[in-house]
Amino acid sequence: MKKVGLVMGSISDLGAVQPAIDLLKELEIPFEAHVYSAHRSPAEAAAFAKGARENGFGVLIAAAGKAAHLAGALAAQTTLPVIGIPVKSSTLDGLDALLSTVQMPSGLPVATVAIDGSYNAAMLAAQIISLSDAQLADKLDKQRASMHDSVLEKDAELQKKLQ
Amino acid sequence: MKKVGLVMGSISDLGAVQPAIDLLKELEIPFEAHVYSAHRSPAEAAAFAKGARENGFGVLIAAAGKAAHLAGALAAQTTLPVIGIPVKSSTLDGLDALLSTVQMPSGLPVATVAIDGSYNAAMLAAQIISLSDAQLADKLDKQRASMHDSVLEKDAELQKKLQ
Amino acid sequence: MKKVGLVMGSISDLGAVQPAIDLLKELEIPFEAHVYSAHRSPAEAAAFAKGARENGFGVLIAAAGKAAHLAGALAAQTTLPVIGIPVKSSTLDGLDALLSTVQMPSGLPVATVAIDGSYNAAMLAAQIISLSDAQLADKLDKQRASMHDSVLEKDAELQKKLQ
Amino acid sequence: MKKVGLVMGSISDLGAVQPAIDLLKELEIPFEAHVYSAHRSPAEAAAFAKGARENGFGVLIAAAGKAAHLAGALAAQTTLPVIGIPVKSSTLDGLDALLSTVQMPSGLPVATVAIDGSYNAAMLAAQIISLSDAQLADKLDKQRASMHDSVLEKDAELQKKLQ
Amino acid sequence: MKKVGLVMGSISDLGAVQPAIDLLKELEIPFEAHVYSAHRSPAEAAAFAKGARENGFGVLIAAAGKAAHLAGALAAQTTLPVIGIPVKSSTLDGLDALLSTVQMPSGLPVATVAIDGSYNAAMLAAQIISLSDAQLADKLDKQRASMHDSVLEKDAELQKKLQ
Amino acid sequence: MKKVGLVMGSISDLGAVQPAIDLLKELEIPFEAHVYSAHRSPAEAAAFAKGARENGFGVLIAAAGKAAHLAGALAAQTTLPVIGIPVKSSTLDGLDALLSTVQMPSGLPVATVAIDGSYNAAMLAAQIISLSDAQLADKLDKQRASMHDSVLEKDAELQKKLQ
Amino acid sequence: MKKVGLVMGSISDLGAVQPAIDLLKELEIPFEAHVYSAHRSPAEAAAFAKGARENGFGVLIAAAGKAAHLAGALAAQTTLPVIGIPVKSSTLDGLDALLSTVQMPSGLPVATVAIDGSYNAAMLAAQIISLSDAQLADKLDKQRASMHDSVLEKDAELQKKLQ
Amino acid sequence: MKKVGLVMGSISDLGAVQPAIDLLKELEIPFEAHVYSAHRSPAEAAAFAKGARENGFGVLIAAAGKAAHLAGALAAQTTLPVIGIPVKSSTLDGLDALLSTVQMPSGLPVATVAIDGSYNAAMLAAQIISLSDAQLADKLDKQRASMHDSVLEKDAELQKKLQ
Repeated sequence: MKKVGLVMGSISDLGAVQPAIDLLKELEIPFEAHVYSAHRSPAEAAAFAKGARENGFGVLIAAAGKAAHLAGALAAQTTLPVIGIPVKSSTLDGLDALLSTVQMPSGLPVATVAIDGSYNAAMLAAQIISLSDAQLADKLDKQRASMHDSVLEKDAELQKKLQ
Repeated sequence: MKKVGLVMGSISDLGAVQPAIDLLKELEIPFEAHVYSAHRSPAEAAAFAKGARENGFGVLIAAAGKAAHLAGALAAQTTLPVIGIPVKSSTLDGLDALLSTVQMPSGLPVATVAIDGSYNAAMLAAQIISLSDAQLADKLDKQRASMHDSVLEKDAELQKKLQ
Repeated sequence: MKKVGLVMGSISDLGAVQPAIDLLKELEIPFEAHVYSAHRSPAEAAAFAKGARENGFGVLIAAAGKAAHLAGALAAQTTLPVIGIPVKSSTLDGLDALLSTVQMPSGLPVATVAIDGSYNAAMLAAQIISLSDAQLADKLDKQRASMHDSVLEKDAELQKKLQ
Repeated sequence: MKKVGLVMGSISDLGAVQPAIDLLKELEIPFEAHVYSAHRSPAEAAAFAKGARENGFGVLIAAAGKAAHLAGALAAQTTLPVIGIPVKSSTLDGLDALLSTVQMPSGLPVATVAIDGSYNAAMLAAQIISLSDAQLADKLDKQRASMHDSVLEKDAELQKKLQ
Repeated sequence: MKKVGLVMGSISDLGAVQPAIDLLKELEIPFEAHVYSAHRSPAEAAAFAKGARENGFGVLIAAAGKAAHLAGALAAQTTLPVIGIPVKSSTLDGLDALLSTVQMPSGLPVATVAIDGSYNAAMLAAQIISLSDAQLADKLDKQRASMHDSVLEKDAELQKKLQ
Repeated sequence: MKKVGLVMGSISDLGAVQPAIDLLKELEIPFEAHVYSAHRSPAEAAAFAKGARENGFGVLIAAAGKAAHLAGALAAQTTLPVIGIPVKSSTLDGLDALLSTVQMPSGLPVATVAIDGSYNAAMLAAQIISLSDAQLADKLDKQRASMHDSVLEKDAELQKKLQ
Repeated sequence: MKKVGLVMGSISDLGAVQPAIDLLKELEIPFEAHVYSAHRSPAEAAAFAKGARENGFGVLIAAAGKAAHLAGALAAQTTLPVIGIPVKSSTLDGLDALLSTVQMPSGLPVATVAIDGSYNAAMLAAQIISLSDAQLADKLDKQRASMHDSVLEKDAELQKKLQ
Repeated sequence: MKKVGLVMGSISDLGAVQPAIDLLKELEIPFEAHVYSAHRSPAEAAAFAKGARENGFGVLIAAAGKAAHLAGALAAQTTLPVIGIPVKSSTLDGLDALLSTVQMPSGLPVATVAIDGSYNAAMLAAQIISLSDAQLADKLDKQRASMHDSVLEKDAELQKKLQ
């Protein structure tokens, strides 16, 4: 199975990124996680992305806040799909990170998920990898069914509560 | 090769979506394009997404404006990756479509590209499909190299101009 | 009397929705409350809305946050009036939910109330039902009068305080 | 059948309001349209709303731009449902009118539709009136079905185009 | 001396308004403070504003949050200058109140101060009244001079600290 | 009668300011208009404001766009009331000018009107001056009555049109 | 004299950048202008910035729109001051470029000027270089004086016009 | 070495400014810090900026919140580079200060850093001064290298953690 490469701009983003790590583990998708900054270690970030396809990666995920350039910096070095997680910081409620991540120029997409949406970033990576892994596709279908059932259970509980 | 399913919420979005169609053709990626509305033909939109994986699709792309629910509505019916194109309409400069597309709840990602970014949506779809198609990966690398060279040519032209 | 159907996208919205439940009880308007997600249980949400008119509902209310598609998803399945409550979540201060709820395309209105405005959603539902229920109209007039008197009392108290 | 009262803050809003007038005529819903300003003729606006229920109105619609107080000013005088149309003006792309219309205080809802969404305002009024008018409900169902079919036709045309 | 009329839309705004009350007392400007809501007691609010000039008021101040119509509602009833204080509420950080207060239509200005700027509202009222009260003008000049001196003192303290 | 001092940051603002000039002339309020920039001629702007009260001015009006500091710069030099007109420029739809004008710190209010609201700025100045000029107060009342009548005429015309 | 390095992300930014080029020529400041994209030619952009100090540059200027990473990408490779020009594109009125440029993480400043503010970017570069070039400082003082005089002339013209 | 002049609009900004002071000390760059308000002590602020170049300053830094005019007010008095720090206050999350600082008119740039970005303001000042101080340039390069190494260390720690 292709690996997921999960890059965070700062170790302080680890908390925001943890749900992605947990989901990848749960789905048994191989991954590497790294701290590489688009600004403080640009060469390492670039090298990681440049070599990603031949090093067995299928998808990259980047999490960064404020002027969040990390996902775009990775996308500039690879034609693998790159997923961007805009991380909310102390001002502007994540809007700066969202716009910095999603508004990429023509030819260099970043697949952007919700602000602080690291769980969804891992889910999207899993969906991408599932295209060539029927077993993973199956897991995703089961997980979706379980989400569905959980909603119905909550509804049933609510009906009891309201009686 | 897996097909791309390109859905627009209204035929009036065809202009905004055309660059995606053109790129898919250029890259010789098989695709279907449809007009299905999350609100005016919800059953058809849902059925299309629900059957997409077994009908040979690998990625879905949805383009919609304003309260842009289409990508999310497709994502609710499949575990295939779904790409969302927020389309700018006559008010709010596309911000409404962007937030409606990207801010998806936990478990149901939409891979969002820039406002009116249909070219990038197709490029992202191609990157995803390239994971299991070395020839397409090769095309993408060549296309990227050509983008790179074009920038250098423009720089060279600028140098002449400025002398 | 026609029933109100109150749908929340997640059980975690129950707190935000409680003021609506309380007001409907206070006004003795029959209602059902459900947890149905536009994304996690789309079929149930659609079926509920599709059958609503013949199942004796007069108004639907939907509460959801972030890319809040629930009200729109219900509106796509019924010609009953649908009221949307944009719920504030951890980022963007409810602006995402507001725009996702209110900016509906032509032909499919959602009657949107203020962010976290569930009390007003129930009040609006009551106003709609009051069109064919003189007794309820009367209650609403009394309640309005009591709101009015309460303002005057507060003013009177303020006058004492300021002397 | 109950009448719809359609109020615009200025005669310059007539263009923005015309789609509502056209739909009400098409659906054969009786209506009155008026120019009453919350600021320039507050007494007339208030009197109109105050007497609306006993004068045979079932729903009020108010269209206004900028600091759009009109819908709220009507809502302050009646317990009929009041629908607000935020009208885009020369600055801020309608955001000022949207927030001024939708963010009403507790107890006084305004059923807000999209910016410049006068067609939807009339549709919402029709949906409300349809609760006690089976024939109108029928018309709305037919109109919805026709919207649905029109989408499928557009899709069929697109398939031909793409062959 | 002309009186200042200070109106708040809800008694819950008293905290936000207190700095205005304190400054008016400090400057010995006669004032009345009232709780009148544009929506819950519109007649009282209108009557207060309509009679304000002949009842000896020179300036009105209105404080309200969310869809903040109060200042505009007063301005509709008088040609006295009306000052608006946009009050921040639980969502949107006061932007809704600011736009609802400041974006008034042609002919009906509201003199808007900063979000939660009640101290400045009272100061502006004092400046207006000072036009025909030399003693008050003098007080304002002294107060301004004292503000100036306080800045210089703070700077002097900072110099000591930094040595 | 006290004079109005109308300052624009650039001669290019003259068009935006013209409605204020026209209204001041119509109301026969004496005024001076000047081009003084907070940034390009700060000393002249400061001197004008500093001497304004003793030079017979009663109100200052400042019009500026972008980082609109002019009104605040005048307010820093006088205890006269200062009215700010945020002027829309080529980006951000006037939001920058609005926030730069209205969000003044404690002690230094700027009476802010709507974006591009120069007519209202002059009206507000007239209202302020009317406090000590009964004849002007009378004119304002007449003008308000004429605005009111004009709305009713428009409504009457609309009734004819709709028959 | 140290050179200014002016980099644009795309040749389509040349129009937006022209005022900077013109001012640098006018002030006789040596400069190079290049088209290097942070995303399409990241290696060239990085190499240019990395070698800038020893190649005789004193300041870098970067102009880019949308998710404007260019200034940040240069800043990551040099400790020279880097000036960022956010360029307005077809959506969001330049807000995306502004936030992507200015909200840089700790340790890597970008000196951001106004949206589309390329003239000011060159002026800022000139101010920086003037620190070690008394003649340039002199030119800047003269240019400032001429700006000042031009405002006074405009004011004088206005006085004639208004008589 | 040229001095840095660090001005805050209020002593309450000292906390926000402290990281700048600390970095200047660490880099052994001579500086003066002052409390001067653009509004409460405009003459002192202007005099400080006007004399700055001949008093040995090379760069000015201004920190202010809300309608943040301080940086612009200094820029109006000197042709030295002026750096602006937008300080977040209790409403609008710093957006008001950012726009008030960055959107300067043609000819008067303010080098704006991130909201609450005082550390970066000092870094930018250091970069500017480093143009004529090879030793400082060296320190900056070392500091940058240490930032780089710290990222790699964090990555190494993460690898251990994830095993």
